Amino acid sequence: MHIDQASIAELQAALAKYQQQHQQLVARKLNLDLTRGKPSTEQLNLSDKMQSILVGEHTDPNGVDLRNYGGIDGIASAKNLFGEILGLAEEDRSTRVLVGGNSSLSLMHYTLWFAYYLGLKPGDTSWAQQEKNNNSITRFICPCPGYDRHFSLCSQLGIEMIPVSLTGHGPDMDEVESLIKADPSIKGIWCVPRFSNPTGEVYSDETVTRIAKLGKMAGDNFFVLWDNAYAVHTLNNDAQSLASIDKIAKSLGTLDSIIQFGSTSKITFASAGIGYMASSEANIKGFIQHFGKASIGPDKSNQMRHVKLLKDLANVQQHMAKHAKIITPKFAAVKKSLEENIGGTGMGDWNNPNGGYFVSFNTRPGLAKKVISLAAEAGVKLTPAGATYPEGNDPQDTNIRIAPTYPELDDVEAAMAVLVNCVLLASIEQKLVSQTNNQVSVDLTNCT
Amino acid sequence: MHIDQASIAELQAALAKYQQQHQQLVARKLNLDLTRGKPSTEQLNLSDKMQSILVGEHTDPNGVDLRNYGGIDGIASAKNLFGEILGLAEEDRSTRVLVGGNSSLSLMHYTLWFAYYLGLKPGDTSWAQQEKNNNSITRFICPCPGYDRHFSLCSQLGIEMIPVSLTGHGPDMDEVESLIKADPSIKGIWCVPRFSNPTGEVYSDETVTRIAKLGKMAGDNFFVLWDNAYAVHTLNNDAQSLASIDKIAKSLGTLDSIIQFGSTSKITFASAGIGYMASSEANIKGFIQHFGKASIGPDKSNQMRHVKLLKDLANVQQHMAKHAKIITPKFAAVKKSLEENIGGTGMGDWNNPNGGYFVSFNTRPGLAKKVISLAAEAGVKLTPAGATYPEGNDPQDTNIRIAPTYPELDDVEAAMAVLVNCVLLASIEQKLVSQTNNQVSVDLTNCT
Repeated sequence: MHIDQASIAELQAALAKYQQQHQQLVARKLNLDLTRGKPSTEQLNLSDKMQSILVGEHTDPNGVDLRNYGGIDGIASAKNLFGEILGLAEEDRSTRVLVGGNSSLSLMHYTLWFAYYLGLKPGDTSWAQQEKNNNSITRFICPCPGYDRHFSLCSQLGIEMIPVSLTGHGPDMDEVESLIKADPSIKGIWCVPRFSNPTGEVYSDETVTRIAKLGKMAGDNFFVLWDNAYAVHTLNNDAQSLASIDKIAKSLGTLDSIIQFGSTSKITFASAGIGYMASSEANIKGFIQHFGKASIGPDKSNQMRHVKLLKDLANVQQHMAKHAKIITPKFAAVKKSLEENIGGTGMGDWNNPNGGYFVSFNTRPGLAKKVISLAAEAGVKLTPAGATYPEGNDPQDTNIRIAPTYPELDDVEAAMAVLVNCVLLASIEQKLVSQTNNQVSVDLTNCT
Repeated sequence: MHIDQASIAELQAALAKYQQQHQQLVARKLNLDLTRGKPSTEQLNLSDKMQSILVGEHTDPNGVDLRNYGGIDGIASAKNLFGEILGLAEEDRSTRVLVGGNSSLSLMHYTLWFAYYLGLKPGDTSWAQQEKNNNSITRFICPCPGYDRHFSLCSQLGIEMIPVSLTGHGPDMDEVESLIKADPSIKGIWCVPRFSNPTGEVYSDETVTRIAKLGKMAGDNFFVLWDNAYAVHTLNNDAQSLASIDKIAKSLGTLDSIIQFGSTSKITFASAGIGYMASSEANIKGFIQHFGKASIGPDKSNQMRHVKLLKDLANVQQHMAKHAKIITPKFAAVKKSLEENIGGTGMGDWNNPNGGYFVSFNTRPGLAKKVISLAAEAGVKLTPAGATYPEGNDPQDTNIRIAPTYPELDDVEAAMAVLVNCVLLASIEQKLVSQTNNQVSVDLTNCT
C-alpha cells in the first residue's frame, strides 16, 4: 500500500491495525536502545589481547620509557601508525601528527577553544579577537544531518552554525563555496568524510579536492575539521575509498586549513582507545604550545598497546574485517525490516551504508519527533529527534539516526519491528488528519 | 669560612679555588638533570603489576564494561579510592569526586577555562563576564615559591598573579585575607598543601581552616585550587599530616569554594596514572556539564588497573613506603652536600622536606640565575631560575628548585658537587665585586 494512493478507508483500516500492533508492542515492555554508535561486546572482545600485550615491556622502539612523563605529541611509532591511517606520506608523520589520550573529541575541543580564544598557531588572530575587530560573530558550516557532538562543541562557544545539505557524495560544494566567498566570518566546516555520521556517504574525490581548496577562498584562520572517524570502518567490499585530503592539500599549499582527527574508539576499545590529529607542521606546533600548558603528555603505555596490536594500516584493515563480520548482520536486519515494511509505501527513505555506524532514516516531513516518541512508549530508545542538526533543530523534522551495532541481533530485529510500526502508524495518522482537514477546507470553500 | 666574616684575601683565595674546581668540573662534560620531579625507573618498577592486572577482566565491580563508552565521572570504585585519598567522607565520594584521564593538570586546565569563559556551575557568572561588568581583570593569589605549571595556566588566560609569601606552614594568611577582603577581582588561590612544591612545607591545621573560610569573605566564584599532589608522598615518619579541607569546608558550608586535585603520576606511572578532583556536588555537576562536551568518558580500564593495584588508602601508604625507600637516600645526598659545603658559610639556605619531590634552595639575593647558568656550563641542568615565581620573575633572584628523584644516587651526588661549587663560586665573586665597589666608592668619597 502506497500512502498517497490509498483510499481513506484503506488508511483507516491500516491505522487501526498499526495502533493495535503498537499497543501489543507497548505491552511487551521492551527495553532496547538504538541511540549511540557503540561497539558491541563481541567487537570489544576482538582487542582483548591489548590487556596483556605490554606485560614485561617498558619502552617504545626508540627506548623511551612508556611509564614516565613526556612526549606531548605521542610516541613515534604511534604517530607513524595513525599518520598512515589519516593518509599522510611517511615522511610527514613525525612532524605533522599528534597522538593523544583516549578521545579525538577532546582534541577537537582543544582545537576549537585554542583557535577561538588564543589563535591556533603563533601569529594567528583568535576568532574572539576577530569578532571584536569586525563586530561580527564566528560561523561554521555544518553539513546536515551530521554528528551532534560536533554541533555541541560549536554551541558551547556560541559559534553560529549554518546547515548545508549533503548530496550523497559530500556537502553541496556550490553552496559551501558561495557561503565562504560571501562571508569572511565563516571560520570552519565540519566534515565526516567517509561513512558520514549518520548518512553513511563517502565524499567523492572531486568533493575532497574542492574542500582542500577552501582555505584559499576563506578568511584568515579558517579550518576544515576533517573528522575521519570511520576511515577504516567498512562493512563490505563495495565500500568507496576516500582520497587523502592531506596529500591533496599538501600539493595545493593549503595544509594550514586542514585539521584531521581520528580515533581507535571503534577499532579497539571505545573507552580505552587512542585519539589523534594531523595538520600542517605550524598548526601542530601551535597546538602543542597551548596544549603543553594542559598536559605533560599522553598515556604512552596505551599508545604502545595499540602499536603492538594494530601494527599498520594493512593489519588494521584485517582487524576491521572481523568487526564487519560481527556488525554486518545487524545492518542487514535494519535494511530488511525497512525494505519489507516501509519499501514502496512512500512512508520513508533511508540509506544503505557500506561502512560506519549508522543508518539514516527519513520520515515524511514533520514526523521524526512523533515516531521517536511512539518508539519510546514501546521501550525503544532512539537518538533524540533533531540531534543530527545544529541546536537540535531539524527543520523538516524527518531525520532519525539508527545505531544498530551495540544490541544483539535479535534485539535489533525487535527494535526495528517497533520502529517500522511507529513509522507506519504516525505516517498514516498524519495523512488521515491532513485529508480530513482538506475535506473540511473543501467543504468550507463550498459554503462561502 | 663565613662569607660575611672573611677577609678579602681569604675570599680571593677561595674564589681561585672554586674557579679552578669549576673548570675541572666543566672538563668532565657531565650530562645530569635535576630539573623535573620525575619518578625514577626503580620507582616505576614498583607498579609494573598494573600491566597484567586486568588480563581476562572486562568489568568493574558494578558490572560496567570497562572497554565501552560512558561514565564521564569515572568508575565508582575509583571515585571511592581517590575520594579517600582526598579526605572525603565515604558517603560523599560517589557524588563529589570526578576521576579522569592521566593528568590532574588537564583537570585544572579545564576548571580554569570553564570558570573563566563559561562559569563553573549553572548560575555562575563567568570570570570573563565579571571582567566586562566591572571593567577589571581576574586575579589569583599565588603562594611563592610555587609550581610553574600552575602559573602557566593563569598566564595562558591572562590572569594576573599576586605572589604571597609562604611561612613554613602555608601561605601568610594575614596577607591572603587582607588581599581578598580588599579586592573582589581575586578569583582564586593556588595551594599545594602537603609537601608544597618546592618548599616541602605542610599547611598547618590553622592554615587549612583559614583557607576553608576564604569563600565566605571572597567575591563570587572564588576558588581555592587545592592541588594535593603529594598527599601520600612521605619520605619518613616525621612527615606532618594534613587536615582534610573537605571535611572542614563541609562543616563550614564553603565546599563550593574548594576544588581539590590529585593524581597517581608519582604513585604508579607518571605517564599512565590517573588524575582526579573533588568539590561540592554543584561544582562537580557543573564541571561535568561542560566537560561532557569534550569527552565521552575516561579510560575506565586504566582506572580499574589502579583500583586493583592500590585498593585503599592504607595500601597506598604501604606502596608509598617503597617509593620512600628508593628516594630517601637521594634526598639525604642533597642534604649532606648542602650541609657539608654551604652550611655555616652564609651562602645559602634550604629546607629538609619530609615528603614530596623537591628541595628548595635559596642563594644570596641576585645569584640564582648566575648559579643555574654556571651549573649548565658544567653539564648540570636545573629548573630555570624564576620558574617557581609567576611569569618567571623571582624578585630576589634567589630560589633554585632541586629535583633529586629521577637520577641515580651517584648522579645526584655528582650534580650536587657541581651545584654547591657554583654556589660558592658565585657567592664569593659577588661579595668581592660588592666589596671592591664599596672600596671604590669610599675612595671616591674621600676625593670629593
